[in-house]
Amino acid sequence: LPMTARKGLSEELSLIVGSGHVVTATTAFDEYRKDMADYEAAPVAVVRPGTEGEIARILKVAARRRIPVVPRGAGTSLTGAVVLEGGIVIDMQRFNRTLKVDPVNWYVQVEAGVVLDDLNEGLREHGFFFPPDPASSFICTVGGAIAEGSGGMRCVRYGTMRDWVLALRVVLPNGRVATFGEPLAKNRVGYDLVHLMIGSEGTLGIVTEAHLKILPLPTVPIVRMLVTFDDWPSAGRAIQELRRRQITANLMEFMDLETVKAVNAAFQTTFEEAESTLLVDLEEVIVPSAEEVFRAHGARTFTRASDEEEAERFYSVRSHAYLAIKGLATGVQVEDVTVPIDRLAEYLGLVKEIGGRLGLRIPTLGHAGDGNVHPTILFDRADPAGRAAATAATQELCRYAIRVGGTVTGEHGVGVQKAGLMREQMEAHGATESLRLMKGIKRLFDPKGVMNPRKYVELA
Amino acid sequence: LPMTARKGLSEELSLIVGSGHVVTATTAFDEYRKDMADYEAAPVAVVRPGTEGEIARILKVAARRRIPVVPRGAGTSLTGAVVLEGGIVIDMQRFNRTLKVDPVNWYVQVEAGVVLDDLNEGLREHGFFFPPDPASSFICTVGGAIAEGSGGMRCVRYGTMRDWVLALRVVLPNGRVATFGEPLAKNRVGYDLVHLMIGSEGTLGIVTEAHLKILPLPTVPIVRMLVTFDDWPSAGRAIQELRRRQITANLMEFMDLETVKAVNAAFQTTFEEAESTLLVDLEEVIVPSAEEVFRAHGARTFTRASDEEEAERFYSVRSHAYLAIKGLATGVQVEDVTVPIDRLAEYLGLVKEIGGRLGLRIPTLGHAGDGNVHPTILFDRADPAGRAAATAATQELCRYAIRVGGTVTGEHGVGVQKAGLMREQMEAHGATESLRLMKGIKRLFDPKGVMNPRKYVELA
Repeated sequence: LPMTARKGLSEELSLIVGSGHVVTATTAFDEYRKDMADYEAAPVAVVRPGTEGEIARILKVAARRRIPVVPRGAGTSLTGAVVLEGGIVIDMQRFNRTLKVDPVNWYVQVEAGVVLDDLNEGLREHGFFFPPDPASSFICTVGGAIAEGSGGMRCVRYGTMRDWVLALRVVLPNGRVATFGEPLAKNRVGYDLVHLMIGSEGTLGIVTEAHLKILPLPTVPIVRMLVTFDDWPSAGRAIQELRRRQITANLMEFMDLETVKAVNAAFQTTFEEAESTLLVDLEEVIVPSAEEVFRAHGARTFTRASDEEEAERFYSVRSHAYLAIKGLATGVQVEDVTVPIDRLAEYLGLVKEIGGRLGLRIPTLGHAGDGNVHPTILFDRADPAGRAAATAATQELCRYAIRVGGTVTGEHGVGVQKAGLMREQMEAHGATESLRLMKGIKRLFDPKGVMNPRKYVELA
Repeated sequence: LPMTARKGLSEELSLIVGSGHVVTATTAFDEYRKDMADYEAAPVAVVRPGTEGEIARILKVAARRRIPVVPRGAGTSLTGAVVLEGGIVIDMQRFNRTLKVDPVNWYVQVEAGVVLDDLNEGLREHGFFFPPDPASSFICTVGGAIAEGSGGMRCVRYGTMRDWVLALRVVLPNGRVATFGEPLAKNRVGYDLVHLMIGSEGTLGIVTEAHLKILPLPTVPIVRMLVTFDDWPSAGRAIQELRRRQITANLMEFMDLETVKAVNAAFQTTFEEAESTLLVDLEEVIVPSAEEVFRAHGARTFTRASDEEEAERFYSVRSHAYLAIKGLATGVQVEDVTVPIDRLAEYLGLVKEIGGRLGLRIPTLGHAGDGNVHPTILFDRADPAGRAAATAATQELCRYAIRVGGTVTGEHGVGVQKAGLMREQMEAHGATESLRLMKGIKRLFDPKGVMNPRKYVELA
């Protein structure tokens, strides 16, 4: 955009939101160029509306000037979904109020810019919690988690965002506001538009407000433990056997040797450095039967957290892992394949094998209880061969997933990163017609192509 | 359709499925004219395909002859969704196989014509169950329950069909077969088409197969009891207070005096005849605190089932209720409003008051724990004034629900019965744009208007 047009746009946006809410300072502006995986694209304007009416007016300006828009929570996408070349970034941070905690209907009514951890802190006072807990929950927002259909560590028991949204307020690309769904235990009015928005990655409209289901804080005693193994597949086989025996964990996280080493080095901790480690939460009554399964699959050590403080410390080895790993290389690609749980051991073996064969370091961690771990492929950004090997590893993992009935993305989404692999998966799994329908839905919601265009479903 | 065209159609369909699978005998054919609430419409043909390929060929014949189609499970719709004037009924009963019970991934892969109770009988051998349990579960099918987004008694703990479908195979109106979703714990590939199908009432496509989530059979001890009250709102207030105290029931069913009397008369039972009765399942450990709440709200008697057999007997008072009530009048209209749970007592009071004011008998029963009871309005089919009063009562209940943030249908759906009231609700709740999008989705999936046309979203 030429400088004068850019200035005109900035002035027009200022008239809508006030000049204090149009970001112009270069350093602040630059923060909107990247997502958390360093996908990069330069916006032409960044604006922070405070009302739905302002969003509607911004969309009208965008339509008239033929400039696309992308809504943004905390920008923690890992797939390029939230950066948009030449677009207007609509930063939702001013939509930051929790409007209602309803202790009878068990929902919270909340604006899109509320940070997930803040939401849970507020809920705790009322004796409730909101289950989905992506690793970025300390900064990521309700709106972003809806747009990305986020998961997290508690999913193994409670499912993902898909299972926790009752109703939404959405500013549509035409500038009109619509409600989707009802904040009720049951509702059969109309097609399910709520679930169309969950995981739509900013391509269909802008969520301003949500009614989310909440649950009473658990009261049953939970035991947290670290369980170590001499190889990766044994941990996977133990998890498969737990499912077969109908033993449900509240947390079932995998970490390999390199991950634990990285955490120990970065945070001066002294966690046991085994070939693989599981971080496990179990209801106390089922601990003995779970331990039996772990032992039968070669578990080397069990360490139970003796108190709340130690339980927190155990948790931190996993929650700090990505930060620790990110420091290991200039290039870090977090993979997100999910496989059927009965393929978990095989999949873990494959990750290990690919790393060796392609000469890549792939520290691996994640939600093994869901068949969803994150092989984190390290490479040197300055070395084209390294980058090519990382891409080859990703493609091999994704194509394995497609072959065995898994998915190329379990929680990080598609963005620009995996549009091609998504198409491969859909074609292989008999969903070619579904892709056609998805493109039709995109056109129906956004006929002028204003919302986060040339990505995801459209790009596939 | 003229007789010769009808004969031509019948012959053409016979070529596709074999003459044994085209229903021509008048008595058998007549069974497809009605749904369970006696909505009536005469089809031109009834056909029972055995494969997706046959369905595709039937759709092509329908498109060429410009005859609409409607898929049918057991025909237990209560809203006219499954009867179609001048249409081809595609009876899905031959899609009756359970293809796979997966004890590690916790899903069942099942064809659309499988009866829900049969499904659960099969799952029990593997130690699993499928939670949604509409009252018609002894005949209703997986495909019908998906099309209707069905609920049931266990919803108070486990939610409705919306919470239990992972993936679908669908024959689209263009005759092509598509898969929606993936049978995985997590999947972020593409927009959520699975949930678009749940509750779409046969207007978007024909589900042939589903992957449904399953759960291990519960192992914690459950207490079943009957709790009686001297009026209706007290039962409602007790339920509201249980929610406020975070006490979750596994079953929380309401029955009024007339309902219990009807059951006692029809089935020669001797259940206590109180103004209102709750049928309650609770985990044993929480029974004392629940009893405390019931007593504080004026509960008159508690009767705990002493063994499995008595528990079954208690259950039957509720499960037989609709059959018993249906015999009380020539006209029976089952209402389906759902209100926010904190409005339950007020709503129950209103139902009672309307019955008195309009001179109607309205036996009332249902899923009070979800804010979803079924006032069952009795009238004399031969008496126009009685029918008018029944309609007036329905409208008053629905408009009350709309006013307090409830819904005109919690589980029975829209069909032709509630298209107008659905529009009223959507307009009142800020969802006018949503209705426009829904009509667009209908056109996108079914541009030629072949699938169960002029109903539901389209009619609103």
